[in-house]
Amino acid sequence: MTNQDQIKQNQAMDDNTPSETTVHIVFEPVGRRGEVPASVSLLEAARRLGVELTSICGGVGICGRCKVRVVSGQVSELTVPEREALSQQELEQNFRLACMAYPLSNCQISVPSESLSTPMRTQVEGMEEAETAIAPPVRTLAVALDPPSLDRPLADAENLLQVVNRSCDTPADSIDLGVLQELPHQLRAWDWRCQAHIRGNEIVAVTPVGAPPLGLAVDLGSTKIAGYLVDLYSGHMLAAQGITNPQTSYGEDIVSRITYAERNSGGAHRLQQVVVEGINQLIGELCAKAGTDRQHILEVVIVGNTAMHHLLLRLPTHQLARSPFIPAVVSDLDIRARDIGLAVAPGAHLYIPPNIAGYVGADHVAVLIATAQAWSESTTLVIDIGTNTEISLITPEGAITSLSCASGPAFEGYHIKYGVRATTGAIERVQITPDRVFYKTIDDATPVGICGSGILDAVAQLRLAGVLGENGTFQRDSHPHLHRVDNQWEFILAERNEYVITVTQQDVREIQLAKAAIQTGIEVLLRENRVSADQIAKVLLAGAFGSYIDIGNAVAIGMLPALPLERFSQIGNAAGVGARQLLLSEPLRKTAQALRSRVHFIELAPYPGFGKIFARNCRLSPH
Amino acid sequence: MTNQDQIKQNQAMDDNTPSETTVHIVFEPVGRRGEVPASVSLLEAARRLGVELTSICGGVGICGRCKVRVVSGQVSELTVPEREALSQQELEQNFRLACMAYPLSNCQISVPSESLSTPMRTQVEGMEEAETAIAPPVRTLAVALDPPSLDRPLADAENLLQVVNRSCDTPADSIDLGVLQELPHQLRAWDWRCQAHIRGNEIVAVTPVGAPPLGLAVDLGSTKIAGYLVDLYSGHMLAAQGITNPQTSYGEDIVSRITYAERNSGGAHRLQQVVVEGINQLIGELCAKAGTDRQHILEVVIVGNTAMHHLLLRLPTHQLARSPFIPAVVSDLDIRARDIGLAVAPGAHLYIPPNIAGYVGADHVAVLIATAQAWSESTTLVIDIGTNTEISLITPEGAITSLSCASGPAFEGYHIKYGVRATTGAIERVQITPDRVFYKTIDDATPVGICGSGILDAVAQLRLAGVLGENGTFQRDSHPHLHRVDNQWEFILAERNEYVITVTQQDVREIQLAKAAIQTGIEVLLRENRVSADQIAKVLLAGAFGSYIDIGNAVAIGMLPALPLERFSQIGNAAGVGARQLLLSEPLRKTAQALRSRVHFIELAPYPGFGKIFARNCRLSPH
Repeated sequence: MTNQDQIKQNQAMDDNTPSETTVHIVFEPVGRRGEVPASVSLLEAARRLGVELTSICGGVGICGRCKVRVVSGQVSELTVPEREALSQQELEQNFRLACMAYPLSNCQISVPSESLSTPMRTQVEGMEEAETAIAPPVRTLAVALDPPSLDRPLADAENLLQVVNRSCDTPADSIDLGVLQELPHQLRAWDWRCQAHIRGNEIVAVTPVGAPPLGLAVDLGSTKIAGYLVDLYSGHMLAAQGITNPQTSYGEDIVSRITYAERNSGGAHRLQQVVVEGINQLIGELCAKAGTDRQHILEVVIVGNTAMHHLLLRLPTHQLARSPFIPAVVSDLDIRARDIGLAVAPGAHLYIPPNIAGYVGADHVAVLIATAQAWSESTTLVIDIGTNTEISLITPEGAITSLSCASGPAFEGYHIKYGVRATTGAIERVQITPDRVFYKTIDDATPVGICGSGILDAVAQLRLAGVLGENGTFQRDSHPHLHRVDNQWEFILAERNEYVITVTQQDVREIQLAKAAIQTGIEVLLRENRVSADQIAKVLLAGAFGSYIDIGNAVAIGMLPALPLERFSQIGNAAGVGARQLLLSEPLRKTAQALRSRVHFIELAPYPGFGKIFARNCRLSPH
Repeated sequence: MTNQDQIKQNQAMDDNTPSETTVHIVFEPVGRRGEVPASVSLLEAARRLGVELTSICGGVGICGRCKVRVVSGQVSELTVPEREALSQQELEQNFRLACMAYPLSNCQISVPSESLSTPMRTQVEGMEEAETAIAPPVRTLAVALDPPSLDRPLADAENLLQVVNRSCDTPADSIDLGVLQELPHQLRAWDWRCQAHIRGNEIVAVTPVGAPPLGLAVDLGSTKIAGYLVDLYSGHMLAAQGITNPQTSYGEDIVSRITYAERNSGGAHRLQQVVVEGINQLIGELCAKAGTDRQHILEVVIVGNTAMHHLLLRLPTHQLARSPFIPAVVSDLDIRARDIGLAVAPGAHLYIPPNIAGYVGADHVAVLIATAQAWSESTTLVIDIGTNTEISLITPEGAITSLSCASGPAFEGYHIKYGVRATTGAIERVQITPDRVFYKTIDDATPVGICGSGILDAVAQLRLAGVLGENGTFQRDSHPHLHRVDNQWEFILAERNEYVITVTQQDVREIQLAKAAIQTGIEVLLRENRVSADQIAKVLLAGAFGSYIDIGNAVAIGMLPALPLERFSQIGNAAGVGARQLLLSEPLRKTAQALRSRVHFIELAPYPGFGKIFARNCRLSPH
């Protein structure tokens, strides 16, 4: 008996008897089970039992997304679309397309995770998993076209639009030029079958049937660029990869890059070019890892601080770098990815979340988005420490106050005599007793210098051991490791043969300035909101540095408020998590824009009494 | 008494007396006159008397568009905005801004045409002037911004959007990236005053106050490119210019260019590049003529045949050049001008009207738009003769049937022994009596060859003089100018010293094929619509060739139907007129798209009986 016959018979039975034949289906591993009429496909059966299988062709056997495996029981015979969509191996393993297979008896069906359409789960480290409903701005539809003929000489674009609009609720009325330039070749090469990807009313990409619809999220840091390749429908991350920002060769920090852009003819253009080349190279690596093609990337989200944002988009930075520090734009941007040279699907869009102000950028907005569940009902400090440290204080009523403080590059190893980045051999942890020094290096390698968390530990431990006074001055004869070198006190952290790594008086001064900046930022935020430090329920430390410092030592020197340690969470790259959430959810982009307009921004330098507070906060003592 | 005092006094009078002071104003040369309250500005007075003065700043003295000259009478004192907006010469000539000047007595006011906001008047040659309401897709607003400060550190984009949205009914919510890249410099250089140009919800250009908002219309022919620079608000044409299509060096006709694109790697890209470079050069020449800047061009319309359309947009032509002749797209396109490399305002859009089919393009749609008033209520043939001749038959009920016939390049001077383009010295008119030959050359110069209209005349006159038989064969000894050369009959048109210009038997054959193609197209259209030739009320001949041929001769050989001569109109470059209308009127673009979907297109070659009709139409005799 064929599939069709069976259906007809079932339908005939429907007509004759009020109680139709039912079968019992078990869906594994999701654990849904129940009775369904034998006349419905496995796809429809799954829906009725609450299992959300992916399907983008409307159940006509084209898209191949609703693969399931028949573990036990009888189903209808294999159809032609299934023979085309499934590999030999899959056929041998009893894989079927749920839309084409009808149950003939009680069945046990296994659903692979890639066939499930589930909410995206993202997690920032140490926090509860957040659930974001997947609602990307791009819809995908698998279609089959009738080839044109002399009797029906329909243009390729209109042919595609007609078929798409037949199967689609919100009509598409145009096709991006970049897509049109490839469409005639592709339709003929793919035998008039394809996936159309629709954004708003426009077809922004066309890919072969079966190609995964991909998205790219990028956390564009001044030093490091992190990229995430994501399936836009399942939310699964297919690959993650980091590279050094190639702009680094034009200036280690933002200020020197802005100077380069201003002083060199074509400098801004060059800086844009190298960062876009860098991201394109990153895309290549991500696609190679995931075994896919960059043409399948349909949507891109990039977050970065305001300066990186401007350099990426080749927006002028002259007015941004000088008081009153005016960005060219703070609203979110939704542009063609190709407009800045990104090599992805021709019509793909690039979404960039809003900036808050000159020194609080879209990356901080992404951090706020990623941590929204954590701060929604309690007084929370969100801190992202870097050369500029962005801090937001959120009250239980939802008021958000943000500022940026110039904490300087000391925590990245700059301006420190033996300072290095956080790489193999960097001293990352220090403990100092009255007569000894313990340290730990990254990868337990031979020490090559001190990174940010190491120098922070060292200064705090030196203060706790009484080697430094409250004003940050080395106390003569206070420790056997303290030596006078070149008319300056230096504290020897590590010594091996002729090689020595020390903390100098100047290093301590740098850390005092850096921690005072952050401490002052926190103090001003508390003042402005009439909140006392002990009212803070949570402190979320985002970013690489914040996630690796020793909280106790940071509290000891006053950089962070003196709160019970359980109120602190070190949450890793929350900006990257937020970027992925914004990639997968269009509604969340509206949230981001609304969130920005709720933020009260404070410019720190002209704040009344700033100098006095800052000077006081240079002391090495708790809040 | 100052202006303000005067107004106050007037207002005071308003409060006290029901009958306020009125003055009598005469607006010249429009000839509107009447009484208005002395408390209203000249701008408001003009409005009340039905004179539509241009104003894009809402009457606050910023835009400088409402210039008028006070011929007689007293008006209020000169204001600061007027001193800024008007030149010394204009001030001396009593020019004022109508929005800033208040009448103090009866006045006579002269309105320069550039200050008038009137419907656009366009004319195709020999036809009645058409009136199109000016409604470009771009709105312009002159604005003054508050500079940002530390207390109000508003980003430039948001600053501009706020001010624009304060004065604008339909809100703008974004600014094109290209505009953002210049905005910070421009706002500061222009002292925070500018004109914002809004399209849909987006600011697509920013120009200095006073710069005219320009549009560009282009008729992109295979051989010639014609450009028109137009003021988008007054509709005035500021400059017109033609250049040779630089693609000509890659192939004289469309087929050889398509072959070049297909056979050479990067060929399609190269063809796009040269034509865009050509248009950019044309823009430069137009702007130089009009003394303006290409950055002030806010909107572009380009019309061309389907092949030129595809080559311009780098759409594949492989499937277009082969049966069943499928275009990549026929719908109208609205894209960024920069996406194909046009150098105009950064966010300017390029609108391209719809194509009808593979060989009836957007240029024919533009012709139909330009001639719509002429064909709206009578049976009309619209013919655009070229290498491909597009013909539409329109019935009084509004049914449009279109087709294209391969008339070949003979009328452009190709494949004719002494054929030349229509340039100085080309024989353009021929008359032949039983024993003599008369001819006229372009510019009355020494003859260098025969152009299209000349060879058409020659063949018709040879037939009428009995030198050619009905089948197109030279009749031995029929004329003293007929000679046997190289075993072939040749008819000597011109002879001077050793130089001779003749019509050969082969030339006659070429013209027979060309005219048969056109005649067959007309015949098929009549058949399809069950219309007889004498029911045709109007024949509109568009394009350079159609506008210069001798109608009587064309009728004599059957190329055009045998109708009274007054039913024919030679209407010049109607495609260019249509392109300008589409540039200035957004509603007309909807008309164009609707018109396209009304067209019934006939593919001629597979038409039943085509070969037989074509063969019969090779005879040199009237319809």
